[in-house]
Amino acid sequence: MATTESPVLLTPGPLSTSTRTKQSMLRDWGSWDVDFNQITGRIRSRLLEIVYGDSTHECVPMQGSGTFSVEAAIGTLVPRDGHVLVPQNGAYCQRIARICRVLGRRLTTIDYAEDVAVSAADVDRELAADPGITHVALVHCETSAGILNPLQAVADVVARRGRGLIVDAMSSFGVLEIDARKTPFEAVIAASGKCLEGPPGMGFVIARREALVRAKGNCHSLAMDLYEQWEYMQKTTQWRFTPPTHVVAAFDSAIEQYLEEGGLFARARRYRENCRILIEGLKRLGLQSFLPLAIQAPIIVTFHAPPSPGYAFSSFYGAVKSRGYILYPGKLTTAETFRVGCMGQLGEHGMGGAVEAIHQSMQVLGISIAVAARAGG
Amino acid sequence: MATTESPVLLTPGPLSTSTRTKQSMLRDWGSWDVDFNQITGRIRSRLLEIVYGDSTHECVPMQGSGTFSVEAAIGTLVPRDGHVLVPQNGAYCQRIARICRVLGRRLTTIDYAEDVAVSAADVDRELAADPGITHVALVHCETSAGILNPLQAVADVVARRGRGLIVDAMSSFGVLEIDARKTPFEAVIAASGKCLEGPPGMGFVIARREALVRAKGNCHSLAMDLYEQWEYMQKTTQWRFTPPTHVVAAFDSAIEQYLEEGGLFARARRYRENCRILIEGLKRLGLQSFLPLAIQAPIIVTFHAPPSPGYAFSSFYGAVKSRGYILYPGKLTTAETFRVGCMGQLGEHGMGGAVEAIHQSMQVLGISIAVAARAGG
Repeated sequence: MATTESPVLLTPGPLSTSTRTKQSMLRDWGSWDVDFNQITGRIRSRLLEIVYGDSTHECVPMQGSGTFSVEAAIGTLVPRDGHVLVPQNGAYCQRIARICRVLGRRLTTIDYAEDVAVSAADVDRELAADPGITHVALVHCETSAGILNPLQAVADVVARRGRGLIVDAMSSFGVLEIDARKTPFEAVIAASGKCLEGPPGMGFVIARREALVRAKGNCHSLAMDLYEQWEYMQKTTQWRFTPPTHVVAAFDSAIEQYLEEGGLFARARRYRENCRILIEGLKRLGLQSFLPLAIQAPIIVTFHAPPSPGYAFSSFYGAVKSRGYILYPGKLTTAETFRVGCMGQLGEHGMGGAVEAIHQSMQVLGISIAVAARAGG
Repeated sequence: MATTESPVLLTPGPLSTSTRTKQSMLRDWGSWDVDFNQITGRIRSRLLEIVYGDSTHECVPMQGSGTFSVEAAIGTLVPRDGHVLVPQNGAYCQRIARICRVLGRRLTTIDYAEDVAVSAADVDRELAADPGITHVALVHCETSAGILNPLQAVADVVARRGRGLIVDAMSSFGVLEIDARKTPFEAVIAASGKCLEGPPGMGFVIARREALVRAKGNCHSLAMDLYEQWEYMQKTTQWRFTPPTHVVAAFDSAIEQYLEEGGLFARARRYRENCRILIEGLKRLGLQSFLPLAIQAPIIVTFHAPPSPGYAFSSFYGAVKSRGYILYPGKLTTAETFRVGCMGQLGEHGMGGAVEAIHQSMQVLGISIAVAARAGG
């Protein structure tokens, strides 16, 4: 439902979860009890299956937001004398670079504009030039602008050069295909509250088994040591420190619903349809999306702010919110923008309801856009 | 209710939360939205009020389990060349020592048996002997055995010696009084899923403002940097990385109910009464508690395993679980024990129901204890 009491979240996680997912939080679980540990085990094996990694990889869940899992992966899998190459085209790439700096890992970046996808050829050139680079860290879908980076091409290059690939798949996992059988990676990282549509509160790392085994003793942190978390879980079936039990149970339910819906292809179809309705609908209102369609992931869409004197993000946000939808602010440094997520449970009126709420808000706020102005934006 | 479908948790967090607390997770929240940020702000100020720290301290919430907040506090507040004294009488003290080792902070320990409280005089002697010690890290209630450590006496000694005190109050916060106006501390750490009876998934640090301000740049981690978390929250009212929104909303509701119940004194009375019914009830069944009553906190009670050939923890646990209650295993290295928590919502039959379930389980399993055997145990 789009109601002002419980508005639909057009944000890239937290997003709107199903009623069934939320209702699965109406029970308390003992974190030591076998009933709960079976839930953890089921989540781990299903996440592995989504990327066809059962025979080669391990799934290690981690408490906290997705960033905790990214830091855990970098801190555990990259040796202390390792060297990470980060191709950068947005805030989440920059965050990985910052993690490397804080953790004292050697770092090289390749810098792109915010509307340009990473190039595998650039990565190849850097790896050829510097044999000391041990890992490449790639953001699959960079939600700053909503850009899709070429995972397969980068993975092929990294594998050919014999380095390790760490993929931040936070906002793509479960919707954009990642197949461990054909896309070589050392780690893929995501979180509960993204495309699998659970509540936020835990992340997970799908790590190549040999890489994990080699990683003992690397980590800078007790709580975020992925190797220790994995080893303890293998031995006991339990989490090493208290898990967010209600979030874990709800994530399990969300994955169950994901599989019932038809898995990756069904969810991708739904998000792509949301994305199409959104971009076409806002185009009719004179609002132009920021990225070329060829590199637009069907996850989150950045729009240019209306080139109208009546526009300010805060009042626009408030008007849309009063109609039952929560927008997301822009995160670009080069242009004034706002963002709309294509993910989550959008309620009975779907993305069409969101487009209509944006339309009404523009009318109420007196935001009008001439086609000429749009063409010039 | 004590049902086998949703058993009552006699565990020291996760524990059984109220229906109202769980129902507050039936809504999704945008982590960027003002409605949600008001919840975060309310939690922060109420937690500060519980320890009378409004004018001197800051409350910084942190994603993850309580251990994440402990590591964040040590890593942020203790400078890289700092030196931590840890008086040790259980597994949670040992965990703090381990955090210091992993983080490369210099460490000195004072080791006690598991049934002996920390002595302020010992702490004083160590601080006098080594002026290089910058911080003392004390576990207030050590849930390994359930022991209560003398916070006020240790705090006085640490203050007199001009060092900083970091208190792990994980299982005492909100029930055993901590008053920042008379108990000097640099940090007190706890979590959502303990005595305040929220769901697990976030912790928090009550940190002295000047200590926090001085701590910029200390931290070994990006995600667990308490200073950065605080600064960002002050500036934006938002969490720095995605918060566990449902857990945060439920924790807010749990704190509301805590205040409605009458706050610390009312909750302490309830837990003390649970503790009394438990110890007296099991004593009638021939089961002896491990600690002298003088150092027994009303949080969790360790019992000697029945000295009966019919006893094995796993079958005992299963029998009690089938009657609707989840026990907690012992964590002592020196004696075979099991533990029973006094905290959380124990349902309509209260602790009496738990005692009765244990009684029935002993009968079914043929565990009988002669008074002579008990006296000898």
